[in-house]
Amino acid sequence: MRIENMIQPRLLKGFRDALPNEAYVREQIIVRLKQSLSSFGFVPIDTPVLEYTEVLLGKGGGETDKQVYRFQDHGNRDVSMRFDLTVPLARFVAQHEHELSFPFRRYHMEKVWRGENTQKGRYREFIQSDFDIVGDDSSQSDFEILLLMKTALEEIGVDNFSIQFNHRGILNELLKQLELGQYEVEILRLIDKLGKIGREKVKDELTELIGARTEAIIQFIDVEGTNLEILSELEKLVPQAEEPISRVRSILSLLQAMDIEDTFSINTSITRGLDYYTGIVFETFLPDLPEYGSVCSGGRYNNLAGLYTKTPIPGVGAAIGLDRLIAALNEKGLLKDLKPGAELAVFALDPEYAAEYQKIADTLRKSGVKTEVLPMGKKMQWYFKQAEKKSISHAIICGANEFSSQTYQLKNLINRETSEYKDLQELSQVVLQELR
Amino acid sequence: MRIENMIQPRLLKGFRDALPNEAYVREQIIVRLKQSLSSFGFVPIDTPVLEYTEVLLGKGGGETDKQVYRFQDHGNRDVSMRFDLTVPLARFVAQHEHELSFPFRRYHMEKVWRGENTQKGRYREFIQSDFDIVGDDSSQSDFEILLLMKTALEEIGVDNFSIQFNHRGILNELLKQLELGQYEVEILRLIDKLGKIGREKVKDELTELIGARTEAIIQFIDVEGTNLEILSELEKLVPQAEEPISRVRSILSLLQAMDIEDTFSINTSITRGLDYYTGIVFETFLPDLPEYGSVCSGGRYNNLAGLYTKTPIPGVGAAIGLDRLIAALNEKGLLKDLKPGAELAVFALDPEYAAEYQKIADTLRKSGVKTEVLPMGKKMQWYFKQAEKKSISHAIICGANEFSSQTYQLKNLINRETSEYKDLQELSQVVLQELR
Repeated sequence: MRIENMIQPRLLKGFRDALPNEAYVREQIIVRLKQSLSSFGFVPIDTPVLEYTEVLLGKGGGETDKQVYRFQDHGNRDVSMRFDLTVPLARFVAQHEHELSFPFRRYHMEKVWRGENTQKGRYREFIQSDFDIVGDDSSQSDFEILLLMKTALEEIGVDNFSIQFNHRGILNELLKQLELGQYEVEILRLIDKLGKIGREKVKDELTELIGARTEAIIQFIDVEGTNLEILSELEKLVPQAEEPISRVRSILSLLQAMDIEDTFSINTSITRGLDYYTGIVFETFLPDLPEYGSVCSGGRYNNLAGLYTKTPIPGVGAAIGLDRLIAALNEKGLLKDLKPGAELAVFALDPEYAAEYQKIADTLRKSGVKTEVLPMGKKMQWYFKQAEKKSISHAIICGANEFSSQTYQLKNLINRETSEYKDLQELSQVVLQELR
Repeated sequence: MRIENMIQPRLLKGFRDALPNEAYVREQIIVRLKQSLSSFGFVPIDTPVLEYTEVLLGKGGGETDKQVYRFQDHGNRDVSMRFDLTVPLARFVAQHEHELSFPFRRYHMEKVWRGENTQKGRYREFIQSDFDIVGDDSSQSDFEILLLMKTALEEIGVDNFSIQFNHRGILNELLKQLELGQYEVEILRLIDKLGKIGREKVKDELTELIGARTEAIIQFIDVEGTNLEILSELEKLVPQAEEPISRVRSILSLLQAMDIEDTFSINTSITRGLDYYTGIVFETFLPDLPEYGSVCSGGRYNNLAGLYTKTPIPGVGAAIGLDRLIAALNEKGLLKDLKPGAELAVFALDPEYAAEYQKIADTLRKSGVKTEVLPMGKKMQWYFKQAEKKSISHAIICGANEFSSQTYQLKNLINRETSEYKDLQELSQVVLQELR
């Protein structure tokens, strides 16, 4: 290859490589999430990255549409890369309605693409991790998603989090009561900005929009207390919201019965903005790291697949913000144990014993120790450096002497202690004990 | 949503959804592959789906290029979706050369896209599963990839397979010897068609191309016997190929020392066609299901990243044909145990006990039984049907009577046997035993 033909290895703006440490952490977190989801009977699905643009975007053309990676394929079809996993789920459920059994509990954790502005740690390629219960409208499913959020976050090691929830129906009833129905969109949008612009600014903008009735909205989003106190207060403030309040009460009583109410707080200012939610909505915050915002959010919708089928398909689901969550766990030092690669290195000092080194490695792997045979015939110092570079904690050092006396020298590369073993099984047990 | 605005839920030609069974099998097979790879110290990486077209295709324009999904992005950049994981690996290694430590053992199992002709079970979106040892030119690495192929295929339950290997260098020396160097490409292409068009047709086409010298080529690809016999024969036929033959001998002696030579056969007709391999090449066949062709292939290359860096980067690697392998395992009935979803259903017969059903499920999940609480307050027959639809094998059936006597009724839905337990832990142990 002539140098003048060389191409600079580089990435598109907004796209990233994952080096092994990062890729491994992501992989392991996803494995754990899937384990939690499986334990609740959730099943995976997969859908294509490319679909007909019409199927993904509908016939309209909203704000998101401009961010979509859209082009003509080889057959001049108008195609797009998926920008979320919810639209593909809707299409999937409509298309396979008769092959699925409902309530359908599915998860889907894959990449999506949006040609967004790349400022502030936003990427154009990122992983969505969604789980939903589709085809069921019960408070039992609402509760199950909340319980699953708690279970999954604990499973991946998040040690302090607060799941805050609300019911869209209560605010809707309040707006009706105040004859503010026609301002619903603007009011939702404003309340959603609470965290960003602050209470006073929201109040000012509301007042500009709806005048004196602002007071009642502010009173509503200000309601505080224990979950039960909040519900009593809401019953007084929005007497027409009997149905949504009673739904929240059912969910709460299940949380209480399971003795996990502490993790969950009703928060009347949570609306999930302009999303398509119609029932409960929720967000998850890290009290130690509020700057990360919500790491897991979602809610209930009453018509998932209206674009594709006449069958009304209700559901409830959540999405974990994987990148954000991993960044937060990293900041708290909770991912230190997730290290990819070998745990033990075999120093293949003497080419004479090539096969012996491989046999040692084979035995150790079969005992559960991740083992790498380092290249053959290097100097002792090279091996130590190589093991250090790869953050390998243990080494087996064997040359002619050891093989003739049939002993294996094990070196803990962290505390620098050396020990000798006649039996590889015994040696591997020691390594496993020191590792876990 | 008005019906006239509805959109038909459909997929692009050559693209597929994976329903839960299929998605789960794929997920579990990948988990097992990654476990095997991890045990050898391999680490994951990730690269973007979209890259600069120039980076993926170079400055030329070959046959593959026409199949690439290529378009202008929002910033009018010429971008393409990756069509394999080897080019991204080359770019990745060149770009992160100083952040990686070599030999670099990496795996990458993700989707790639090719706008190919969709006949004969070929899809335009499919998963590549690659693993390579990069930055090392030793026979030890060649051996390790072969051993890993065997380990990984066994780990995912393939019960009968044959790994056949060869060394490109031997054929190259033969061609030199016959003064056929300038026909290398055509000859490789013809030998590669052996499986498809048969020996006689290859012979005819070779004769047309190179006349009488065909005999020597045919004699070469016809060499048979034990691995050692083949090597002796090759030493006679191609005396100049001392170096590649001695490399194959080293690999073979490691396979013998590990007592796994039976799985591996030298096959002089394996060339991997026009691929960029320069050393050993290999393919994996299923003797029971020859029609599936090779399910795992690869080889050694001497210059992975020549397009992006002056550093010559050798390596050796393999790719598993996941779709083909899964189809073959399915045909052999070896995937029956990989069933997604709940193993046990809680029949939530009486809404009075909503919280109790959830507590039962929680205990079972914590004991390791995948548990789903079915919707509340249905008729008994509905629950049985629902559990059957979902292929759930066990159920806990509890109503007012059971709760008042504090017993749990467990029903094995396959053999229809019912038993009663006072203790949920005991019950879950019984379920786990019956499941495994």
